[in-house]
Parts: sequence; structure tokens; C-alpha cells
Amino acid sequence: MSCDARFKQLCAQSGHDFDGEIKIGGNYVPLVRHEDQIYISGQIPRVGDSVVVTGRAGGDVTLEAAQQGARISALRAIALLQRSVGSLDRIVRVLRMTMYVQCTDSFTQHSEVADGASEVLFFVFGEAGAHTRSSVGVYQLPKNATVEMDLIAVAERD
Amino acid sequence: MSCDARFKQLCAQSGHDFDGEIKIGGNYVPLVRHEDQIYISGQIPRVGDSVVVTGRAGGDVTLEAAQQGARISALRAIALLQRSVGSLDRIVRVLRMTMYVQCTDSFTQHSEVADGASEVLFFVFGEAGAHTRSSVGVYQLPKNATVEMDLIAVAERD
Amino acid sequence: MSCDARFKQLCAQSGHDFDGEIKIGGNYVPLVRHEDQIYISGQIPRVGDSVVVTGRAGGDVTLEAAQQGARISALRAIALLQRSVGSLDRIVRVLRMTMYVQCTDSFTQHSEVADGASEVLFFVFGEAGAHTRSSVGVYQLPKNATVEMDLIAVAERD
Repeated sequence: MSCDARFKQLCAQSGHDFDGEIKIGGNYVPLVRHEDQIYISGQIPRVGDSVVVTGRAGGDVTLEAAQQGARISALRAIALLQRSVGSLDRIVRVLRMTMYVQCTDSFTQHSEVADGASEVLFFVFGEAGAHTRSSVGVYQLPKNATVEMDLIAVAERD
Repeated sequence: MSCDARFKQLCAQSGHDFDGEIKIGGNYVPLVRHEDQIYISGQIPRVGDSVVVTGRAGGDVTLEAAQQGARISALRAIALLQRSVGSLDRIVRVLRMTMYVQCTDSFTQHSEVADGASEVLFFVFGEAGAHTRSSVGVYQLPKNATVEMDLIAVAERD
Repeated sequence: MSCDARFKQLCAQSGHDFDGEIKIGGNYVPLVRHEDQIYISGQIPRVGDSVVVTGRAGGDVTLEAAQQGARISALRAIALLQRSVGSLDRIVRVLRMTMYVQCTDSFTQHSEVADGASEVLFFVFGEAGAHTRSSVGVYQLPKNATVEMDLIAVAERD
């Protein structure tokens, strides 16, 4: 099965659709490619116009809900990669993920939240999805999102 | 108009001068270049010896003041790039900005704060200033700064 | 004295041993190399199975203790580099450190905390250890760690 087929499968499972415009909230671009490196802007769990997981992990937001937010953010990031390179089979490595989690003062399962996104990367890209990661607990995030995730990946040279 | 002229114009508008030493607060360097990539250390809105925008966005600090802090941080980053490459026309792309905003627990306009810095990059560099971005709300920052911003850019190879 | 000898000396001084498995807390990898660039995942001050510096800088955790946490995180990162490249003399530059500090709402000495890690890099690598840095104060960290640090370095090409 191709990376693209696996991505399609995960999107279907999530019940969300990332075929439309991927909105961003400010004066910047969602993706920049320089030679074989691709930088992806911070992704929150936004589907269409609405952010579907908001609030504080460890407070109103359960670990499971925060992980779902991480998964959706990862699917958005992958949708952006796919538009840039055509087929996801052309992604040769994910270098770095940074996962920011809006949390309570005593919530310490940021890594477990980030695992939601990491599993998506491993599922879609296989070995090429093995990435380095930093997970931290922040005080707030744009639009009260529970998570924000950015990415650096490497694509085949044209 | 050259990138350098546009930078000079923005500095004049800001009422600040970045010609002197650009101080940093610890045991590291403000800029590292490796081949065509340039990494810039986290910049707070410091002018000379004083940090000119301090405190918590959404609390004592208005959105407008936080945006002004973001603008000053961006001007500092650009001043560092200019010293490294000579002319800013040699910057071919800004890859990534990360914007950290010290905020209250309910402030969610981190993207709007970051727009202050993004607009500076677009104004000075034009298309080359189109960058990816992550904006997050943190609990505190060095010297009680309202914002801190770091950057990765690409310069023409020598 | 080689970089490796200096690293061994610092480890001995710290009273800790990084020869065993370097555990990570989730579904990712500790290090990814792409061409000459090496990304290191976020390191907390973990020694073996326990995190040795936990809690909030400015609260229960003194500046000195937080700096010690930063030093241990840096030693872990360097241990990972050493396993990847063989000899640390093959590291030609450290490009970026990001230091996240779990802190109180009024703690502003994040740069001073990060200096603990920066000094380790300078001591081990000399000029090659001169790096860019961002230091921020976050709300929580995985396993209640006081600090988390990630790194990008450049190695000699094979």
C-alpha cells in the first residue's frame, strides 16, 4: 500500500476531510521548501473553519481527546506535504516534530499526547516517519487549541 | 528599493536604532551560519540595554503593544542577518519563525501578535520573506519580555 | 584533549553515567541524521530510569538545581551524538539549542538556566560548540522535568 493510500485510510477513519483549503490564521505560509527540506507551519486541530479540540489537557480535555487533537494536526501536516510533493512516497524522512500542549499546571503526559501524532507519521510513512521530537506544556495556544505541532521533513530531490 | 533600504525605513519608523552592539543575555552566539542556512538566536524586544515591551499579553500588555514587541524582535533579527551577509538582498528565503508570547491563561491571539513580526519580514524581503511560523503562548520569558522570536533563513552561497 | 575526553571528564564530574540505554518516553527516535545535519529529540534530565531534577524553577527548584538539570540534559544529548558519529571530534558545529524551562509565573532567569547546558557544549566542543539558542519558560514538561532541551548539530560528512 502506498503512503498516499495509508493517509487516505487514516483520514477516513478520523471522519474528517482535508481536501479543501487548509486555512491558516495569519500573515505567513503553511509550507516552505528549500532544496530537499520542507518546513511546515504550526498546525492546530482545525477542520475547515473550526478548531475541533480546544481547552486545557488535564483539565476539561482528557488525554484521549488531546491525542485526537494531535492526530488531526498530524493529518493536516501530511495533507500539506502531499500537496507540495504530489505523492507522499516521495517523503524520505521526517526530521523533527515539535508538539506544544496547552495543559494544566500538573499535567505531565505531553509525550503521550504527542504519541497520537507520532503514530500517524509511522503509519503513513513507515521507517521514513521515524522522527525526533520535543513535547512541551504551554500556557495557551492560538484559538484556544489544545495542541499545536510543527514539522520538518525531507523529500526526494526533483 | 533594496531590502536594506526598506529595513532602514522600518527602523526609522520604529524610532529605534540597531546600529550598536546587539546584546545577548548568555553564553551563546546570536547567529550561526552553516552553508547557506542561517540560524538566529531567540530575540526579545531589546533596544540597547533595555527590554522595551515586558509583561503578559492579555494582561497589562495590549495586543498592539505585543505586536510592537514582535516588530522590534524582527528588526533585531534582520539587523543580525544584515551584519552576517552584508546586503539583505542576499537573503533568498526565510524558512521558519517561532514566536513565543508571554500571555495570560485566556489570551488566544498569539497569531495576531506574530503578524507584527511577519509583516516586517514581508515588507523587507518581499516574496523571499514568506515563511513558515509557529506561535505559542508561554508562561514566562527571559527578562519578563512579552515576546521572543527565533528564525532560520537561507542566504545566497558565497 | 579530544572532545571525547572532555565529555568523559564532565560525565565523571556530574556523578552520572550515560553508557547504558538512553531511554525515551514515546513513539519516536532520539536522533535523526540527514546528510551532515543531526537532530536530537528533546532531552530531560533523566539518568537511567529517573528524572533527577523535577519541579518549577523559581518555586521549589533553585536556579542552581535548574542549571544542573540543563547540564545533565546536555550530557545526554552529547552522549547521543557520540553514539551516532563515533568520535565527538567529528562534530563540526552546533547550530541550535532550544531550552524549555518549567517555571513560576515570575521567574525570568531562563537564559541563566540555559547557560548550564551552553557551558557544557563550549567545554566539550570548543569553538564548534558555539550555538544559537532560544530559552523560554513553559507551564509544564513531560514527567514534571524542570528543563527540556533539544539540539541541531552538524557532523563531518562520511
